[in-house]
Amino acid sequence: MTETKIIQATESVFRENDRLAKKLRQKFAQSGVLALNLVSSPGSGKTTILERTAADLKAELKMGVVEGDQQTSRDAERIAKTGISSIQINTMSGCHLDAAMIAKAVDHFDLEDLDVLFIENVGNLVCPAAFDLGEDYRVLTLSVTEGEDKPIKYPNMFMSSHVVLINKIDLCSVLGFQMDECLGYVRRINPATKVFELSARSGEGMENWYQWLREEVKVKKSGKNREGTEE
Amino acid sequence: MTETKIIQATESVFRENDRLAKKLRQKFAQSGVLALNLVSSPGSGKTTILERTAADLKAELKMGVVEGDQQTSRDAERIAKTGISSIQINTMSGCHLDAAMIAKAVDHFDLEDLDVLFIENVGNLVCPAAFDLGEDYRVLTLSVTEGEDKPIKYPNMFMSSHVVLINKIDLCSVLGFQMDECLGYVRRINPATKVFELSARSGEGMENWYQWLREEVKVKKSGKNREGTEE
Repeated sequence: MTETKIIQATESVFRENDRLAKKLRQKFAQSGVLALNLVSSPGSGKTTILERTAADLKAELKMGVVEGDQQTSRDAERIAKTGISSIQINTMSGCHLDAAMIAKAVDHFDLEDLDVLFIENVGNLVCPAAFDLGEDYRVLTLSVTEGEDKPIKYPNMFMSSHVVLINKIDLCSVLGFQMDECLGYVRRINPATKVFELSARSGEGMENWYQWLREEVKVKKSGKNREGTEE
Repeated sequence: MTETKIIQATESVFRENDRLAKKLRQKFAQSGVLALNLVSSPGSGKTTILERTAADLKAELKMGVVEGDQQTSRDAERIAKTGISSIQINTMSGCHLDAAMIAKAVDHFDLEDLDVLFIENVGNLVCPAAFDLGEDYRVLTLSVTEGEDKPIKYPNMFMSSHVVLINKIDLCSVLGFQMDECLGYVRRINPATKVFELSARSGEGMENWYQWLREEVKVKKSGKNREGTEE
């Protein structure tokens, strides 16, 4: 009985979230800002990827970052040091960001003045999969330290992600990480996903990710992105 | 309004879970089996720690393993290869194990014939913190690849854990991992927690963990553990 109850409540939460996410998606489309929802396990290196991306691209792209964590403002402070604007959301006991949190957070940015808005979700490979934040793309970071089999063990998140960044590839040899095996699992779960192999620490492979970002910003600005054509 | 609804539903779910967890705790106490709830991020190395522990201690301790994952039976198969009994729970879209799942799973074991029951939770540093499984101790694995600051970013899980295994210490130097900083954060969140630094891959530090296990099995068997005195 309690089971039924929580499912009903959850469905109404999802409906409300989807309604707010749709409004956010319209807002991002009107401003021509590319919105990316960054998801991963804790410690996969999302913030380090953002730090390096911010430092390397700040001369050519106008970026903003929404940081989600259960507690602390450490990540927003790390981003602020790169010179781009960031805001921290603390979810406290919450396990994911939702569209209502993002709706509040985006008020702190002048969206007209942004090319890209990165939304760094709470480190959690399960729950954020269920919450649309109005993003253009969901970008999943998988660190090679987590093992090859995460795509098949946490399929919901891999199924719902458009881009997978395989991070910390500078550690592949010391770990004996089997990249082909991992890529096979990613493809099995989501054949359409785009994959970039990189290391935010060594810089290897980052340029491919930057190239994708530049292209998507251009597409978004020209209003030819998938949201733009839908509306 | 939806917010209020989900909170009410969740509270009744917690009450029901706590009721079942209490029954499980009594069952474990009656059988004198040490029950450990293993929690962590995905890919922190819980299964590798279990594989090595099973291989090294199977001559002296009778062990069983309950494996929790969203999907696949890979972990239970890995454990089965070590020669100890295991059962897999697939939570599908679920983000944690609960006491009802464990109550069903333990029927597959003869508890009277076990010294230790390891329950490997879904890889998730957030949600499993809220669900008591009737365990004697919650054992959190933190891999050094996840960064020093996880204790302060995910405090609920660190607050509710009795033991922290800091795993993959063979990678400390290549990562530049600051152990003192990490230990400081663990102590700030939970001064009472027991910490073991180890590498399930190299074997370094495993003996301290084994020694703790042996002691706790002895205490549990003698009926002098904290649950035993409460009942």
